[in-house]
Amino acid sequence: MDTTLQTADSEALTPDSADPLKTSAAHARSAVLEELIRQAPGQFRVLTGDRPTGRLHLGHYFGTLHNRIRLQNLGVETFVIIADYQVLTDRDIADNLTEYVEELVLDYLAIGVDPARSTIFTHSAVPALNQLLLPFLSLVSVSELNRNPTVKDEIAHSRQSAVSGLMFTYPVHQAADILFCKANLVPVGQDQLPHLEITRTVARRFNDRYGDGGAVFPRPDALLSSAPLLLGMDGTKMSKSRGNAITLAADADETARLIKGAKTDSERFITYDPATRPEVSSLLLMAALCQDRAPEQIAAEIGSAGAAALKRTVTEAVNECLAPIRARRTEYARDRTYLRGVLREGNERANAVADATLAEVRAAMNSHY
Amino acid sequence: MDTTLQTADSEALTPDSADPLKTSAAHARSAVLEELIRQAPGQFRVLTGDRPTGRLHLGHYFGTLHNRIRLQNLGVETFVIIADYQVLTDRDIADNLTEYVEELVLDYLAIGVDPARSTIFTHSAVPALNQLLLPFLSLVSVSELNRNPTVKDEIAHSRQSAVSGLMFTYPVHQAADILFCKANLVPVGQDQLPHLEITRTVARRFNDRYGDGGAVFPRPDALLSSAPLLLGMDGTKMSKSRGNAITLAADADETARLIKGAKTDSERFITYDPATRPEVSSLLLMAALCQDRAPEQIAAEIGSAGAAALKRTVTEAVNECLAPIRARRTEYARDRTYLRGVLREGNERANAVADATLAEVRAAMNSHY
Repeated sequence: MDTTLQTADSEALTPDSADPLKTSAAHARSAVLEELIRQAPGQFRVLTGDRPTGRLHLGHYFGTLHNRIRLQNLGVETFVIIADYQVLTDRDIADNLTEYVEELVLDYLAIGVDPARSTIFTHSAVPALNQLLLPFLSLVSVSELNRNPTVKDEIAHSRQSAVSGLMFTYPVHQAADILFCKANLVPVGQDQLPHLEITRTVARRFNDRYGDGGAVFPRPDALLSSAPLLLGMDGTKMSKSRGNAITLAADADETARLIKGAKTDSERFITYDPATRPEVSSLLLMAALCQDRAPEQIAAEIGSAGAAALKRTVTEAVNECLAPIRARRTEYARDRTYLRGVLREGNERANAVADATLAEVRAAMNSHY
Repeated sequence: MDTTLQTADSEALTPDSADPLKTSAAHARSAVLEELIRQAPGQFRVLTGDRPTGRLHLGHYFGTLHNRIRLQNLGVETFVIIADYQVLTDRDIADNLTEYVEELVLDYLAIGVDPARSTIFTHSAVPALNQLLLPFLSLVSVSELNRNPTVKDEIAHSRQSAVSGLMFTYPVHQAADILFCKANLVPVGQDQLPHLEITRTVARRFNDRYGDGGAVFPRPDALLSSAPLLLGMDGTKMSKSRGNAITLAADADETARLIKGAKTDSERFITYDPATRPEVSSLLLMAALCQDRAPEQIAAEIGSAGAAALKRTVTEAVNECLAPIRARRTEYARDRTYLRGVLREGNERANAVADATLAEVRAAMNSHY
């Protein structure tokens, strides 16, 4: 591993992600990391992934997926985890888990995750990964778990009796997801910084306690991406559960229909102004991201042609951008055997990596009987 | 499995072990179980074990170990777990874990655990067992974990920041320890009833949620034993850490020395009266247990010969009782290769059982990709 990376002071990325100073430090650090990645992609290993909660949509695509493919294609080894133990509280998903997982793999293949270079796996298929939860839990206190923002939110929004032990320990399980493969880079949104901080703490404490002077685990760096915020067709946050999202899997007609029904405003002249015209601006941004252009430029081209013209432009841009992805998706969807093979092979690879890490962990802990 | 056992109403063994009605119900249930065991030992599987915290002593022997050997010899299949993840907070033990584990295996072999009939294993060596922690944690709420008496004690005695996530989730990990091998019988002391209750709750909820009408897991029964309370040589609770215990591994001279220094009282005439003469009565009980006689009878034989005579009697009884155990211990201690082989084989057997259970669990959860 690059020594610059190891000795760099990453303490800046500490607990409170709401602290603007710390967020700005995290952004600065990410810029440095981008430069290091360009120089030596082979020195990085990325852990990324999703909970299998349904089909991925444009918000996911431009928010995180696009960035993953970019890193993979830069030559960074990538592990893509399907966090299937983190959806158990949703009865519908839990009852149809295999289907949800396979749809996610389909989306991955469609957007360009290359199974030859990236390892797609489910964490439930990797026992040695899950075992890491136990020694890791010994390194984190209940108070620290209580301070986790997601858990705090959950307790505030429901009742403590509704928070399961699994959700409560989630940040530590996430540490196992990241550290089992010794990932040193985790692309995150700003709200995920505190989670990653627990992973970094676990890695540091494990090394201090059992490392015998060396480091068993890297302390992974957050790679913050400037994820654009796309609104759904009703002007609220794009989300599958609200039915306002354009999924990668939707066909061209469905896409046209969704965009046709999108909320705009009463101003005929089209301008890009996210603060005062969020819906129109989000549509412009969508077209802009699809065409890799500036939203202001697209706005200028439409001008007084109004919302109908805007929607035609957006529909065309989205369908053109997603066409090759959708074509690949349709093709892969025909071959479930291949799909399952990708997952099986990914799981095997993840198991080999996890077994090796667990063996190392058990030796460090004097428990390799 | 015996249908009487499955349909019996074991709800009586519920949460609060301090409730005398419930404790008495648990005792009554245990009497029924003892009868069932005698009739059909092959229908039971026992999970029992220890944390590797040091050499076992007479208190352990008459408290639990003796009972385990009895069950094994009655023909009950027994899994003996060495809970090596539950000692990580003790730095001395954690740093010398291999030694602590091997000493425990030695003690087991010495008292008569037969590796051909009983499976001795460490939970850190069985990843599929540990993975069960994750689905199980999804079935238990944080409030339920907070209500666990051991956790409550720990929080009361120290600070919440001193309670690790591992200790907090311990009762659920114990559920994994018990259920991975589908044990339906767990010999416990009264104070362990609440822990077992969480295991029973996890089993019930898993079956309800994922069982598809059937039962993936048994709801294990507590087998309460009337464990006699032996005091240490200083009159307080016998405990290795207080240096007041007679370990199984001690030799005859050390035993004599320890008993010679035992606390008694100023009354010359020896009587068995645990309430007013706890130290003398504990010594009498020790001799009585060793000789399988009544403590009152031994007291009557000593009478006015006083504490010195009592101590000679106790020393002789203990050394005679432990002589074959110690001889076997010395013999096994010479052959570390055999010792490690026992553990390795036990771990292999436990892994085979755990892998099968996890496969069943993953299939039940629709996550067998």
